[in-house]
Amino acid sequence: MRDVAIIGVGLTKFGERWESGLRELMAEAGLAALEDANVESKDVEIVYGGTMASGRFIGQEHVAALLADQLGFKNIPAVRIENACASGGSALRQGYMAVASGMYNLVAVGGVEKMTDATSTEATTALGGAGDQEWELSQGITFPGLYALMARRHMYEYGTTVEQMASVAVKNHDNACKNKYAQFHKKFTISDILNSKVVADPLRILDCSPISDGAAAVILAPLEIAKKYTDTPIHIIGSAQASDTLGLSDRDKITEIKATKIAAEDAFRQAKISSKDVNVLEVHDCFTIAEILAMEDMGFYKKGQAAKAIEDGETTLNSKISVNTSGGLKGCGHPVGATGIKQAVEVTLQLRGEAGERQVNGAEIGVTHNVGGSGATSVVHVMKRHN
Amino acid sequence: MRDVAIIGVGLTKFGERWESGLRELMAEAGLAALEDANVESKDVEIVYGGTMASGRFIGQEHVAALLADQLGFKNIPAVRIENACASGGSALRQGYMAVASGMYNLVAVGGVEKMTDATSTEATTALGGAGDQEWELSQGITFPGLYALMARRHMYEYGTTVEQMASVAVKNHDNACKNKYAQFHKKFTISDILNSKVVADPLRILDCSPISDGAAAVILAPLEIAKKYTDTPIHIIGSAQASDTLGLSDRDKITEIKATKIAAEDAFRQAKISSKDVNVLEVHDCFTIAEILAMEDMGFYKKGQAAKAIEDGETTLNSKISVNTSGGLKGCGHPVGATGIKQAVEVTLQLRGEAGERQVNGAEIGVTHNVGGSGATSVVHVMKRHN
Repeated sequence: MRDVAIIGVGLTKFGERWESGLRELMAEAGLAALEDANVESKDVEIVYGGTMASGRFIGQEHVAALLADQLGFKNIPAVRIENACASGGSALRQGYMAVASGMYNLVAVGGVEKMTDATSTEATTALGGAGDQEWELSQGITFPGLYALMARRHMYEYGTTVEQMASVAVKNHDNACKNKYAQFHKKFTISDILNSKVVADPLRILDCSPISDGAAAVILAPLEIAKKYTDTPIHIIGSAQASDTLGLSDRDKITEIKATKIAAEDAFRQAKISSKDVNVLEVHDCFTIAEILAMEDMGFYKKGQAAKAIEDGETTLNSKISVNTSGGLKGCGHPVGATGIKQAVEVTLQLRGEAGERQVNGAEIGVTHNVGGSGATSVVHVMKRHN
Repeated sequence: MRDVAIIGVGLTKFGERWESGLRELMAEAGLAALEDANVESKDVEIVYGGTMASGRFIGQEHVAALLADQLGFKNIPAVRIENACASGGSALRQGYMAVASGMYNLVAVGGVEKMTDATSTEATTALGGAGDQEWELSQGITFPGLYALMARRHMYEYGTTVEQMASVAVKNHDNACKNKYAQFHKKFTISDILNSKVVADPLRILDCSPISDGAAAVILAPLEIAKKYTDTPIHIIGSAQASDTLGLSDRDKITEIKATKIAAEDAFRQAKISSKDVNVLEVHDCFTIAEILAMEDMGFYKKGQAAKAIEDGETTLNSKISVNTSGGLKGCGHPVGATGIKQAVEVTLQLRGEAGERQVNGAEIGVTHNVGGSGATSVVHVMKRHN
């Protein structure tokens, strides 16, 4: 197995991108990544594309071939990965495997979602496809409703409060204000969150990540040749993925995401690190409760202790551990298929020291954490600056 | 890179499976493959699932996690691959790469589609997502219409006749009569085909593959340990994939599928074979013209010569080369995501000598060919009996 590095990254602005369709978004992020990597289209050998529900949002399946076509990757293998909201992270991992195996040298991985052409009802219905259609959604629960069940149980078992959940949103929107690619550039107070409209009790609209358009891309290469392309390769030192039951009712507990525990443990073991070594962390905060679960399930806090720590400011920028410096799904936006790749872009920028106003001082090791559905898929990557 | 073998296969009956949903179909094929491979669920290390449009057909994305859940693959990585009608073949290739790389030993690959819950208009619209939504489908052409353009141009350039195209359907329905898993068990004459309803001129309903439910699965392992599980491992000696422009209008020619030419050449080179060495061949006959293109693009016939050869009976069972012994997409059915895996199941059965009434005598080398859309993806595998 070969060592794998990220040698280039690209991102579009996330948000309501009325002027751009799926193909324009992909091209924008992909071309930026190629330029950043000093790689020409013709040299890319395989491409992976992560998209969740392009079929339902805009009628377009077969998105990886479109991605290859748009970026001028003539006739190379193109593979779409769909693992709900973890489509991007899963695509990154397949790209990592393609390089690690020795089969391919230059690999492009993109993630994209064009969501705002759908009505909000259509979008919510499409996103419900991430959960168990037969056993959950068709019974009437919405996707936010699944996370609301998890939040309510977490409050019951651990005394987690709505104020603590709101503190996740406040922090992530603060960080988003420092990120020009973020969908929102507006600060919120705890009281703003708590007074926003209820979506699925106890989750309010400002506890939920938004509907977004956007794309993200990375270029991967073997570490041994990475310096040919960039002075600052980012070494992927751990890559792991796990699954769980699609439906919540089949799980022993709904106050943890078991797939995250397994994936994080595996990735940290590969990377030979413990949670204490991590300086910067992008976690899957599709809802505020999800960030609390992630911080516990990856071992940064004991179960039931993350919410208070976040409320106490331990995860704000340049505090104990800087979490969701990009703004997270909450503030940066959540174009579903793009999210897992955007996390890798953000960690790359942080480890390169190129994160500007939101730079984490002395960031050496970063982690990305991307969840599909209510936790049936979880993907964790560990990255390190390579000097 | 390690050698990879198929150690077990499973299939459901294809057709209108009113009594079974997506999860039941996956479980049926997957459990059959595990039993055939003498492998227990708990020993499978990663699973790939190919599905094209489960989101649009039944509202369910995130299908690989569901597949893992249904088959008791507790907490392993589960990855859905979507490459339109080549989703199955693409998933097989990712599974192949996972074993070849040395990262995983026991890999399950499944393909599934549950199509008959949709109305025929919904199904046709969803299948249109395989082509270029913005530049083709939204302009009013249907997916059969794209192949009709290719057929009409092939007729114009090479004198291909509707009778010759019909002979593909006659042959494949004949083969399907010998396959208990096939959707149709009815023989047709040339005149039946030519008198059937026009779908997109010159293609008639009996030139088109049907709407089907079904699933297929294979278990992969390193060749070096394959004999622990089965006396008849099937060695995958070539695995290749290529892409092309999503839309027909961007191509130099529409009388060939360039992605097939590239993928076949690459796979045959890896396998160190020429087309003359192939005894049994499953090709992507989504429409009758597609089988003619495939036979030319893979080098079995010169451009413009396949149609007459098929009409002359050179590709019927146990003739010069036995093509689509399963019945093909045309006669066996085309549950989109399952098709590429079903092709591998059929070739495995043929190379094992277990194809019953439709056994190709002395089959040593087999090929599968799976196309996405109107040719933006093509996947070719070469397989050999391992003694």
